[in-house]
Parts: sequence; C-alpha cells; structure tokens
Amino acid sequence: MSQTVTTSPALETPQAERIVISVDAMGSDKGPAAVVAGCSRSAKENKSTFFLLHGRKSELEPLVARKKSLRGRCTIVDAEDVVEMNDKPAQVMRTGKSTSMWSALESVRKGEATVCVSCGNTGALMALSVIRLRKIPGVYRPAIGVLWPSRNPQGFNVMLDAGADIRADERDLLQYALMGASYARNGLNLERPRVGLLNVGTEEFKGRAEIQAANELIAENADAARFDYVGFVEGSDLPGKTCDVIVTDGFTGNIALKTGEGTASLIRDLLREAFNYTPLSRLAALLAYTSLKRLGRRIDPRQVNGGVFLGLNGTVVKSHGSADATGVAAAIKLASQLAQSGFNEKLAARISAATMLAGESGQDHGDETTDEASK
Amino acid sequence: MSQTVTTSPALETPQAERIVISVDAMGSDKGPAAVVAGCSRSAKENKSTFFLLHGRKSELEPLVARKKSLRGRCTIVDAEDVVEMNDKPAQVMRTGKSTSMWSALESVRKGEATVCVSCGNTGALMALSVIRLRKIPGVYRPAIGVLWPSRNPQGFNVMLDAGADIRADERDLLQYALMGASYARNGLNLERPRVGLLNVGTEEFKGRAEIQAANELIAENADAARFDYVGFVEGSDLPGKTCDVIVTDGFTGNIALKTGEGTASLIRDLLREAFNYTPLSRLAALLAYTSLKRLGRRIDPRQVNGGVFLGLNGTVVKSHGSADATGVAAAIKLASQLAQSGFNEKLAARISAATMLAGESGQDHGDETTDEASK
Repeated sequence: MSQTVTTSPALETPQAERIVISVDAMGSDKGPAAVVAGCSRSAKENKSTFFLLHGRKSELEPLVARKKSLRGRCTIVDAEDVVEMNDKPAQVMRTGKSTSMWSALESVRKGEATVCVSCGNTGALMALSVIRLRKIPGVYRPAIGVLWPSRNPQGFNVMLDAGADIRADERDLLQYALMGASYARNGLNLERPRVGLLNVGTEEFKGRAEIQAANELIAENADAARFDYVGFVEGSDLPGKTCDVIVTDGFTGNIALKTGEGTASLIRDLLREAFNYTPLSRLAALLAYTSLKRLGRRIDPRQVNGGVFLGLNGTVVKSHGSADATGVAAAIKLASQLAQSGFNEKLAARISAATMLAGESGQDHGDETTDEASK
Repeated sequence: MSQTVTTSPALETPQAERIVISVDAMGSDKGPAAVVAGCSRSAKENKSTFFLLHGRKSELEPLVARKKSLRGRCTIVDAEDVVEMNDKPAQVMRTGKSTSMWSALESVRKGEATVCVSCGNTGALMALSVIRLRKIPGVYRPAIGVLWPSRNPQGFNVMLDAGADIRADERDLLQYALMGASYARNGLNLERPRVGLLNVGTEEFKGRAEIQAANELIAENADAARFDYVGFVEGSDLPGKTCDVIVTDGFTGNIALKTGEGTASLIRDLLREAFNYTPLSRLAALLAYTSLKRLGRRIDPRQVNGGVFLGLNGTVVKSHGSADATGVAAAIKLASQLAQSGFNEKLAARISAATMLAGESGQDHGDETTDEASK
C-alpha cells in the first residue's frame, strides 16, 4: 500500500500533442487481427494517436507490418499469455503477470499511456484495474459507465454502474452521479449534464432506503458539481431525453443494459425477417437500403462500444469481447477523446472537492487526498 | 381477517360455458368509449364472453347501446367515482368504495365474475386487489406477471414480478417461479415451461445472498411443480429463447420492463424517421407496408397488453392506462383464456402443494390452507 501515483499519466506524456493509448491486443473473440485493424482505422482518423500494443510479438509484428497507417505510430510490447473469457478474476490477479491485459494496464500505471483499451474478460479487467491502477482518492466503488442510444441531441446518454459491483449505497450513488456528470461533460461535451436516479415509477415503491437517501444527497451536491439533478427517472428514460446521465447500482444497471441490447437485437432480426418475407418487401429493402443503414448505425452496439471504468487512477475502456475492427476503432476514439480532455484529472479533482465538502478528507483516504489536492 | 373466500368464483358461474369478465370501464386515459369498443371487439371474437361493466351508468349506457355485439352480453353496474392516475393507493383504499375500480373487483370477490380487467392506476389496483380479494393461502407476496415478446415459438415469455413489490427474498422468488410456471402453462399453453432466475452475467457477481438461496430452492422444487429450471439468466434472455419464464424482484423487473419498452419505442420512431428521410425511402416504406405492419404487430405493446396480478383469490388483468380498443381487447382476450383454463384454481393448488411440501402449512396461513386443501 506504500506505492502512490502522485502525478497523472497525461502530464508525463513527452509531447503535449501526442496521445498514447495502451491496447490489449489479445482479448477479442475475433483475434488480434481485428484489434490491429481497429487501431489502424483510428490511426487514419486521428493523427495524434499513438499505440502501445500488448500481446504476442510473433503474432502482432506481421499484422502491424501490413498496416501502412501504423508505421511509426505503434510499439509492440511482448506479452506471452492471454486472459481467457472464462478465467476467474481472482486467478488472473494471482498469476496473470505475463498476460497482455496486465501489461496493457501496466503502461497506464507507469504513465507511458493515458488510457487502456481491452476487449477482454470484464471481471478480470476490472479486478486487475483496481489492484494495479488503484482507486482515485475518495472513491469507494469504481463504476462502469456506458453510452446508451437516446433521443437526446447528443445521441447518447450515460448510464452507470453497468456492472462493476452488485451493491451501491447512497454514498456510492452520489459518487456515480459525480463521475457520470464528469464523463458526460468530457465524453459528450455537455457543459451542464442533467442527472437522474433510476427508480420504479409508482409513488408507493419509492421505498428502498438507499435510493431515498441518495436522492437527497445528489440534490444537495448538484450545484457544487455543476450538474442539474432531475430526480427519479424510470427505465423508459434510459433511451429518453429526460436526462443525460442515469445513476443506478451495478446489478440493476447490468440487467437494464442487457435487456436493452437484447430488445434491440430481437427487433433487428424481426426487421430483417420482415423484409425477406415477400419479393415486394425484398425490393423495398433494396430501395430503403441507405435509410436502414443509417438506422442501423444509430442503434449499432459497436458504435457505442466502450464501457469506461470510472474512479481509477487512469482511464480503462472495456470494449465488447466480440468487437470487430469497427468496434475497436469506436472504443479507441472514445479513449482518445477522454485522454485529450484530461478527463481523469478533472474527475479526480471533482471527487476530491466533494469529499472535502462532505468533511471526510481526514478519514481512510487522508494521505492520498493530500496528494490529490496538490495537483 | 374473519372473512374467507372458501369457493372459487369460477365454480359459482351459473352456466358452465359462460365466462363473465368484470371490466372497470373508467380507468383508461382514452375514456370509457375505448374500453367499450374493446369489449365489443372481444364480444365478436369470443361468443362465450359476457361483461359486467363498471362505471357511470349515464356515460356507459349510450356507448353500449351503440354496439350491436354487446346486446344481451353486457350488464352495467353503476359506480359514480373514478380512481385517477395520480391518486394515492392508501387514499383509494380508505375512500374508494364508490369507484368503478372497487366495484369491478367486488364482482370478482362475490363470485359474479372470474376475472377483473382495469386500465387504471396500477398502485391503487394492486392495493385494492390485495385487500378485497386477499392473497391465496400460502402466498407471501403477490406479483405482476407480464408477457414479453421473445424468440420462442410461442412468441412471448413471462416475466414476474414486474413491480407489485420492490423486495423479494428467496421464498418469494420460489413462489414467483411456481406462479410464473402456472401462468405460462395456462396462458401460453406450455406444458412444461422452462424457468430462469434473472441475475448479472459475470461469475464474480453471483453474490446477492437471496438470489443464491433462491437458485437452490427453485431447483429443488422444479420437478414437483412440473417445470424445468434452467438456472441463472441475463437481461438479454428476457426476449430470448433460453427459457419461457423469467423470475426477478419487482424493482429489477419494473426497470427491465420499462427499459425494454423504451428501447422498442425509440427504435420504432427511428425507423419511421428513416423511412421518411428521402423520396426513395418513402416509396420503400409503401412497398414494405404489409411487412412493416406484421413486424409492428409482433412488437406492439398493445398486443401484450395485460399485466396479470398473481397470487390472489381471483385473477386481475391490468391493462395499459393508454390502451385503446385494440389494447383493451387484448387484455380481455388474455383474461378470458385464463378464466377458461381455470388458471387461478390450478395456481392455488400448486402453491398449496408447495407450501405443504415445505412443511409450512401450520404457520401463519394455517387455517386458510385447510380451506384450500378441501377444494
């Protein structure tokens, strides 16, 4: 516990313009080729992005050599092992030092990169992130923030926690509100995000004690943290326009996320089926091709591909395990934007301010809070 | 507590063929005309359905007189008051005796009708249903079961609890499994339904104590209750084909339901937008008209319009507040099917058997269990 991260990785980056992203090249179901293709696509789009690519050098070298866009922009860091999708997080924490996931996080810990991107096993990635990067001083529980296609002008809402932890008390829910508002400000360019607390609709049921308490806590802190609090929201507000940030515990958030994805995927399949039903409908599908493509992009989970681990010393973007080049590129784009905006430093400052306001600075995180305040 | 319902309503119905449905005519946002139109549509489809229509006689009489299909099939029961959407359940329980909702439930309580259908305020309807119809002996918490469009051959899955209560311990979750399986058997004609317990995906998170305990309890009881238990399922399985019945607490269930509805509604609107984008896409929409109509029907919330209150002495079907004639007709159709199958008696027997198996018959519900067993 003696090791403390005193300066933020971004400040140590040699050239101010340069954004270095640490990529776990081995975690995708589709293999390292998909990850390298995603890096290549991002490299073309954003000239200031550089990559540290972690994985088996023998496999990665030929893949990278084939991509012109990655020339001089990509360093391979050899790591011989791979965390598998069904590996237990506890096991990975004990014996995972030689994995590409561990190595990718290590680059962020050492300040060589600002953000880590991985398609690997969520549980293992979260567990490793917490022990290696450690929590931001003052944060009780880290959370996973996800982007949700919505009716809002920015096209997306932020929901957290999507499943970092199954429990959250009122303190945690307040911190999720602070972290979610920071994320919306830096990831979606919303200066004053509107935050809502997920609950069930009927008056009678507003009964869970921690949600009642969180409702009051968040309302009290909204102004100091520069967001608007809209109070309780319902499941239908996740894709709605009532607010930009939806706060909930990781159990509920995980189930809502998968319910939304499952519903969208069912409708997509039924739509495909409907357009294949008659020769006339197949012709219609042809005519509507670009319109349907446009709709598809809007609700394509690959486009919002990146759960962000919030509350750690360093940003970690978790991409879908089944992400292809498009998905990986979307995750890298999000990572770059967060890195460029200095997101994590701002979030740390925000948490630090809220912690001091609440008069908790002298408690369990005291020494670290001092480091934090000196930034 | 002295009043006990000893015989089931269905057994008292004068003609065996006749199904009497008690309808709260005043609860819909669209007014009593929509409800009467829904009854009329159902009357045409099913010749054995009769109606007790509760509400303001002066308003209902002219509406009913205009519908040929309701001649001789509909009795109006005068009730001058209406439960409004924002009325507090506690208030309605104290002062709601003159409302159409109270009156509609009373017909079921007195055995004049087998099933009650209402579009009104969910909280008030649940509260009144519990105090007037009372819980089936052995049931701890009633639940709301909803139908969810799915990839299964029957087109729908059952999810419960959709929001009757925000809490559920392992005993409750077991009862939800029993009730949900009964519902699937009688409402979806599945002889041996597959039941799953909603949880988050990652190994690490299988931690909530009551869900762990429920997992074991449900597995132990599956065979005796003639269903297959598939274990934990995720949000994506709600519209999936892994199982037919998904069990969860009312907080999670309510949020999942509204998330699913909100997602479907967003996609519907985006689809409409996509087809309005260019002249070509508008032409395509025209050509695909019937295919899109077919898809629309499949995911139209009005078609699955009926949350069923489970665990009470009498079946109550809650229809959407915004239900139109199509929605009301769908709710009545479901109500008729449940009445015809003798669903509630079977469910009571199932709960009674499980309670006795668990050796709890001598406890708080002892006297009522005796009544139950004599059926």
